[in-house]
Amino acid sequence: MTDSDVPLGWRFAGVRAGFKADAEALDLALVVSDRPAAGAGMFTTNRVCAAPVQVSRNRLPSKSIRGFVVNSGNANACTGEQGMRDAEAMCRLAAQGIGAEEVSFLVCSTGVIGRPMRMEIVPDGIGRAVQKLGPKAIDAETAARAILTTDTVVKTSVRTIGGAKFFGFAKGAAMIGPNMATMLAFVVTDAVADSETLWAILRAAVDASFHSISVEGHTSTNDTVLLLANGASGVSPSREELQKAVGEVCIDLAQAIIRDSEGATKFVTIDVTGARSDADARIIAKSIAEDALVKAALFGNDPNWGRICSAAGHSGAPFEERDLSLVVNGSLLYDRGTPTPFDKAKESARLAAGREIHLELKFTLGEGKCRFWTSDLSYDYVRLNAEYTT
Amino acid sequence: MTDSDVPLGWRFAGVRAGFKADAEALDLALVVSDRPAAGAGMFTTNRVCAAPVQVSRNRLPSKSIRGFVVNSGNANACTGEQGMRDAEAMCRLAAQGIGAEEVSFLVCSTGVIGRPMRMEIVPDGIGRAVQKLGPKAIDAETAARAILTTDTVVKTSVRTIGGAKFFGFAKGAAMIGPNMATMLAFVVTDAVADSETLWAILRAAVDASFHSISVEGHTSTNDTVLLLANGASGVSPSREELQKAVGEVCIDLAQAIIRDSEGATKFVTIDVTGARSDADARIIAKSIAEDALVKAALFGNDPNWGRICSAAGHSGAPFEERDLSLVVNGSLLYDRGTPTPFDKAKESARLAAGREIHLELKFTLGEGKCRFWTSDLSYDYVRLNAEYTT
Repeated sequence: MTDSDVPLGWRFAGVRAGFKADAEALDLALVVSDRPAAGAGMFTTNRVCAAPVQVSRNRLPSKSIRGFVVNSGNANACTGEQGMRDAEAMCRLAAQGIGAEEVSFLVCSTGVIGRPMRMEIVPDGIGRAVQKLGPKAIDAETAARAILTTDTVVKTSVRTIGGAKFFGFAKGAAMIGPNMATMLAFVVTDAVADSETLWAILRAAVDASFHSISVEGHTSTNDTVLLLANGASGVSPSREELQKAVGEVCIDLAQAIIRDSEGATKFVTIDVTGARSDADARIIAKSIAEDALVKAALFGNDPNWGRICSAAGHSGAPFEERDLSLVVNGSLLYDRGTPTPFDKAKESARLAAGREIHLELKFTLGEGKCRFWTSDLSYDYVRLNAEYTT
Repeated sequence: MTDSDVPLGWRFAGVRAGFKADAEALDLALVVSDRPAAGAGMFTTNRVCAAPVQVSRNRLPSKSIRGFVVNSGNANACTGEQGMRDAEAMCRLAAQGIGAEEVSFLVCSTGVIGRPMRMEIVPDGIGRAVQKLGPKAIDAETAARAILTTDTVVKTSVRTIGGAKFFGFAKGAAMIGPNMATMLAFVVTDAVADSETLWAILRAAVDASFHSISVEGHTSTNDTVLLLANGASGVSPSREELQKAVGEVCIDLAQAIIRDSEGATKFVTIDVTGARSDADARIIAKSIAEDALVKAALFGNDPNWGRICSAAGHSGAPFEERDLSLVVNGSLLYDRGTPTPFDKAKESARLAAGREIHLELKFTLGEGKCRFWTSDLSYDYVRLNAEYTT
């Protein structure tokens, strides 16, 4: 991204506050709008949800958000009443730093759970972030870097539509890490939009992106997606333009998360078409995406049509075998209920040749469809998740 | 088991027909009653279901079952119309062998899917099984051995209640294997019982046993549980006695399947108590049992209360953090919403010291409860499921 990609009226900073053990690691991001922004958010549905989720959720939707602060290294989850006070204090400190109201700030945290926040380091960290706030691409990328935990790459995406700019950044390397890796994603724009429109657009965009990726189906205590529009461009895109821009940014970020799954060796796209409904298509795609047997087979470059069709079969969506055909990387392996006489060694060699795998499940039941992304199940997945960490 | 454990009026055989590549391996079992038996069955809910499942399901419940034939090495799944004809032919050949009607026989298959049955070897195999039918413990154990695929141990269980004998045998080593390992279980008794009672008893017994084990939540194309009562003892146990005997046999077999999970290093018992309802308790237990992150942590002897509580939280069952406490192998790690200050190294060492892990999730919401069993997620699990097989 370049400086001209950054939405107007937004400033960014990333600093080291001291939450992470690594003395070089950035761990606090601050994002500020120079005027009140409309905002909408989506949050984890896990019943065990972190204090910052509870605080931010209560402040959205809103027409007067001035910014948000994010720390990495401590999730502020399972921290009781003190956690709530700490999350509110982070908003207050950030708001005070730019001369705004506490309720105009949102907060997100990611990292280990069950440990109190080291609040003594927060005032200094936020203070330095306020000093460093800047409008350039490097500032935005530094903020994007400061929210990472087990991620191996910075994840950003930009779009410009009709003169309005959209910048998104995210963290998440699947559900991997010392405890659990939260998925955080933020999209800020200088478009003019009200919070009700943003909420509807965000919900559709998240369904087609972050809700369409899965490694093992585990939602974390801190998952958050925010969409903020400050109107600084003066441009009012149509509803369709807004949906397209936000949707594309979210898909970019969701795919980047799957590609950065620790231990993954494959990037798997699942296309279900011809299902009875979109809902059925999603149930089937998700069942395959989260199936350990399918994922282990893909790690082994095994064109195991049986496991894939069986994962569809036990998804709960009704169908008959003859309704289903399966195409793997362009090869028809299962044709309306019957396996084709394909060359297994050849198909396996084709899978082994690349990182991308495309599974197409073609039903003959209707117009329902869903695109979903996942990774494989590798030795490294087990190693990274079984490691005993203090 | 001893000869006196075998229910009256039942005979058993296990032979090699030739389905398996290993020239020494038994692969065909025959079980016959000397009189019509009442029968009930439960079958896979997978929409992709094998021909023998369709044939047997259509013949139950029944008051006139004379026996069943089981082959291992080929699942007769995804084999189209020919598969149906082959499954029916197996029943017909077995029935002819003992002079019974074709519809009085049931059939089960387990093994690779998508390949036609080698029917040319079936008449000889069934013929030799008929010759070998015997009423002794060794005959029953040989039949139990002939149904195995990736299993490493024969799985049997016996009970005697009020003079009636119950013999159960099963195969299944979790969802592991060249393609997918089916779970098959059979309970035969010489008690007097009608098929409606058997059906009700079987459903409750399966809920508390085979439906309470999971490795990754994948049901196979061939899963089958049969309960047959021939009344040869002349004993009519009470409903409670029948439930107790069948229930205990099914739990024995279900636990044996989990203990024989290929690649597993842990046997995990999950007790959820104090939930809003039994249904909620089951949803929570299943979510934990199938969570790859929890299972990888247990493989690593990591007392990871966060993953366990989070898996409960994303199960879909509603609760607040303060409603939940977690006890792992007797140690309270999470107390009504807050982690306890436990010694992580010590707890990890305790987990590492044994194979058994007991997770107790104690809610304060009601009387709902569920006991569930699972295994851990190990390197060997991935290796065994990723191997490219022909």
